[in-house]
Amino acid sequence: MTESIEKPRTPDQLDTITQALNSGMFVHVRRMLQQMRPGDVAWLLESSPSPSRKVLWQLIDPDEYGEILEELSEEVRDGIIRLMDPEKLAAALEDMESDDLAYVLRDLPEQLFNQVLTQMDEQDRQRAKQALSYPEDTAGSIMNTEFITLRADVSIDVVLRYLRLHTELPEGTDTLYVVDQHNRLLGDISLASLVVQDPATTVADAMDTQVEAIPLAMSDTEVANLFERHDWLSAPVVDDDYQLLGRITIDDVVDIIREEGEHSMMGMAKMDDDEDTFAPVLTSARRRSIWLTVNLGSALLAASVSNMFEETLSQLATLAILMTIVPSMGGIAGNQTLALVIRGMAVGHIGDSNARWLLTKEALVGLFNGLLWAVMVAIVVSLWKGSWEIGLVLATAMFINLSVAGLAGAAIPLVMRKLNIDPALAGSMALTTITDIVGLFSFLGLSTLILLH
Amino acid sequence: MTESIEKPRTPDQLDTITQALNSGMFVHVRRMLQQMRPGDVAWLLESSPSPSRKVLWQLIDPDEYGEILEELSEEVRDGIIRLMDPEKLAAALEDMESDDLAYVLRDLPEQLFNQVLTQMDEQDRQRAKQALSYPEDTAGSIMNTEFITLRADVSIDVVLRYLRLHTELPEGTDTLYVVDQHNRLLGDISLASLVVQDPATTVADAMDTQVEAIPLAMSDTEVANLFERHDWLSAPVVDDDYQLLGRITIDDVVDIIREEGEHSMMGMAKMDDDEDTFAPVLTSARRRSIWLTVNLGSALLAASVSNMFEETLSQLATLAILMTIVPSMGGIAGNQTLALVIRGMAVGHIGDSNARWLLTKEALVGLFNGLLWAVMVAIVVSLWKGSWEIGLVLATAMFINLSVAGLAGAAIPLVMRKLNIDPALAGSMALTTITDIVGLFSFLGLSTLILLH
Repeated sequence: MTESIEKPRTPDQLDTITQALNSGMFVHVRRMLQQMRPGDVAWLLESSPSPSRKVLWQLIDPDEYGEILEELSEEVRDGIIRLMDPEKLAAALEDMESDDLAYVLRDLPEQLFNQVLTQMDEQDRQRAKQALSYPEDTAGSIMNTEFITLRADVSIDVVLRYLRLHTELPEGTDTLYVVDQHNRLLGDISLASLVVQDPATTVADAMDTQVEAIPLAMSDTEVANLFERHDWLSAPVVDDDYQLLGRITIDDVVDIIREEGEHSMMGMAKMDDDEDTFAPVLTSARRRSIWLTVNLGSALLAASVSNMFEETLSQLATLAILMTIVPSMGGIAGNQTLALVIRGMAVGHIGDSNARWLLTKEALVGLFNGLLWAVMVAIVVSLWKGSWEIGLVLATAMFINLSVAGLAGAAIPLVMRKLNIDPALAGSMALTTITDIVGLFSFLGLSTLILLH
Repeated sequence: MTESIEKPRTPDQLDTITQALNSGMFVHVRRMLQQMRPGDVAWLLESSPSPSRKVLWQLIDPDEYGEILEELSEEVRDGIIRLMDPEKLAAALEDMESDDLAYVLRDLPEQLFNQVLTQMDEQDRQRAKQALSYPEDTAGSIMNTEFITLRADVSIDVVLRYLRLHTELPEGTDTLYVVDQHNRLLGDISLASLVVQDPATTVADAMDTQVEAIPLAMSDTEVANLFERHDWLSAPVVDDDYQLLGRITIDDVVDIIREEGEHSMMGMAKMDDDEDTFAPVLTSARRRSIWLTVNLGSALLAASVSNMFEETLSQLATLAILMTIVPSMGGIAGNQTLALVIRGMAVGHIGDSNARWLLTKEALVGLFNGLLWAVMVAIVVSLWKGSWEIGLVLATAMFINLSVAGLAGAAIPLVMRKLNIDPALAGSMALTTITDIVGLFSFLGLSTLILLH
C-alpha cells in the first residue's frame, strides 16, 4: 500500500509539464493537471510565462477553478479572471471560505463584481456581503465564519456524537468554541484535548478558559505576530461584547507573513510586491516607472547640489573622482539602520518606550562608524592621491554623512509610522536622498573651504 | 465567566512593563511576568534594550526558562544563555521538542555544549544527539520525533480509547500516522476526520492514503513552500524506504518563512538578519562593517573609473555634476529586477524551463526602460544645461546602463544560485558595482569621444 505515499512535487517537475505544453501535448498535460492538487496547479500557473497561462487554464477541470483561484496571487488571478465569464466565476466562488471569497471579490472590477454577485445564490450573496463589510487588512477581513460551537453543560460524549453528525468539519478546524446562549465566547477546546478527555466529563470542565480572543478591528499584521508568538493554529475573533464572530486560521496568517516579507524586501528595491514575475514586458516596465521617476528627481536634486560647486569642481577634477564615495557609504550605512528598524516595527518590537533608546543607539553606531570609516578612507585616499588635505576633507565629510545616516535611518521609519506612510516603500528613497545631499554638500563644501584657499 | 477571555497583549502594554522596570518596581514586574505566556515574555525580552534583559531574566520564574528560550531569536538567546549556568540550562532544555532542542544546542559554544550534554539525563542526551545528526536547514533538522502512530487494522473506537490513555497529545498534534509493522507510512488520519468517523470503521477505511511525505533531506525552504502551497498544518518526514521518522509542524514553518523574508529584506540593505535590534553599539557597528568594507571597495573601484577620465572632467566640470545620474538610475532599475528574481526563486517559481524566458523579458524591460529614460533625461538636461550634445551623451549612457541593469539584475541571481552563493546578500552589491562602473564608463567615455572633439 505504501505506493500511494508520494514524494512532493519539486521545481524540477515544472520543467516536465512546461516541455509537454511547449510540444503541444495537450492531452498529456491535461492528464498531468488532473493528478495535481489545486495548490500545485496554482504554483504551476504562477511559474508560467503569461502566454502559457491561458493555455493551461483551458486544460484545467472547471470543477477545480475555485480552489485554484483561492491559491493564486492577486496579479496572476486578475489575469485569469479576465478569461472567465461571470457565470463560471460565480460557480467557482461558491465553495470558497468566506474570507477567501471576500479576498477574491474585493479585487474585481465593479462591473464584473456586480455580475458575479447577481449570479450567486442568495445565501452566498449574503455571506459575500458580510465578509466584504469588514475593512481590508483587519482581523474581520481574514476570518471565516464557518466553525463549530458547543454549549458548556454537555458531556464530551455528547460532543463526539454531535460531531459524527457531520460528514466533515469546516476546513482547518483544530478547535471547537464554547459559547453561552448569547453567542459570547466562554472558552475553547482543541480536538487534541477533546480526544483525550473522559467521555463523561462536561465541556465546562474540559474547556480552556484562558483564551486570547482577537478583536475584530485588530490589524492583520498584528494578528500574524500573535500567531507567531504563541504558535497558534487558529484563533477566535470577537466583537467588543465578546460575541464570537469568526475564526482566523494559520493558512491565512502564513500568507500574510509571506506577503509582508515580500513587501519589505521588494520595497527596499523600489518594487511593487504585487508585480507578477512573468508579466508581459510593458506591464512590468510601467509598474516600475513610478520609482524610477522619483529616483530621477532625487538624482537631479543631488546633481543640483554638485552644481553649486561647479567652480570648485572645474579647479580640481580630483574632487569629481572622489565625490561619489561619501554618498555611497552613507547610503549603505543608513539603509542598514533603516532595515533594522523596519524589521523591528514589523514584528512589533518597537513601541514608544524603546524608540528613543533605539534612536540613540543607532546615532551612536553612526558616530562610531563615521569615525572608523573616516580614518580608513583618509588613509587610502591620502596614499592614492598623495594629498593629506584631500584625505582630511574626505574623512570629515564621511564622519558627518555616516552620523547623519545613522540618525536618519532610525528616525525616518519612526516618523513615517506616525504619519501613516509605509517606510518599507518610501523609507529607503527618502534616506538615500538625504545621504546623497549631505554627502555631496559636506564633501564639496569642505573642499571649497579648505582646498581652494 | 466571560471575564477570563482576554484581549491579546499589544505593543502598548510593552510600555507599562518597561516603565515599571525603569522605576525599579521589581515585585510588580515579577507579578506581571508571571501572568504572561512564554511567547509574550520572549517578545518582551526581544523588545528590551540589552541592559534591561538581564534584569528581566532574573525576575522570570526558572520553570518557564525552557519555553521562553525556545521562542527567542538566536542572537537574543545567545546573550541570555551566557547568563545561565550549565545545570540550569540543561534543566531548561529538558522539556523541549526535539527540533527545538537541536536548534538551541547547535548554537552553543563547544565547551558549554559539552557541559550541558553531560548534565542531561541519558534519554534526553540520545534525543539531542539524534536531532543534531541531521544537517541544518533540512527537513530532518526541523522535524520533531514525538508523534502518535496507529495500525491500520484497528477500529476508530479502539483508537479513541487508546488516545484517552494519554493525558495530552504531543504538542501541535493535528494528525495521526498509520504505519505497518516496519514503521513504513501507509496513510494518515487527521483529528478533524477522526472525530466524525463511525467508531466501528477501521483505520484502514478511514485513513487518507494520498499523503505527500517529506524526504529527510529536503531543504527547509522547499518544505515551507509546500506547507504554504497546500495549507498543511503538519507533514510526515520519511526516509528513502518510506519509514516514518518524524513530523514537521506549521509553527516551525512559520518561523522559516518569517526568517526568509527578513533575510531577503535585510540582505537587500546589506544587513545580517541575525542582528539583534537592541544589541550594544559596538556589537552592531562590528557586524555592519563587513558590507561597509565591501562597499568602500566598490566605491573606490567606481572612483578609479572616473579617474581614467580626469582630463575630461577637468575640461568640463558640468560632467562631474551630471555623472551620478546614470549610475543612480541603473542601480534602481537593476535592483528592481534583482528583487523580482530573488522572490521568484524563493517561492520556487523559477526553474530551468522558465529562466530563459524571464531573462529575455527582463532584458527587454531594461531596453524599454532605457529608451524611455534616455528620452526623459535628454530633455531635462538639455533644458537645464542648454546643450543638446550633453543631453545626447547622457541619453546614450542611460540607455546602455539600463539595458545592462535589466540583464544583470536577472542574470546575477540565476548565476549565483548555480554557484551556491546567496543572491539575497551578495546580489545587490554585485549589481550596484556593475551599474556604477558601466554607468560612469559609458557616460564619461562618450563625453570624451563626443564633447571634447
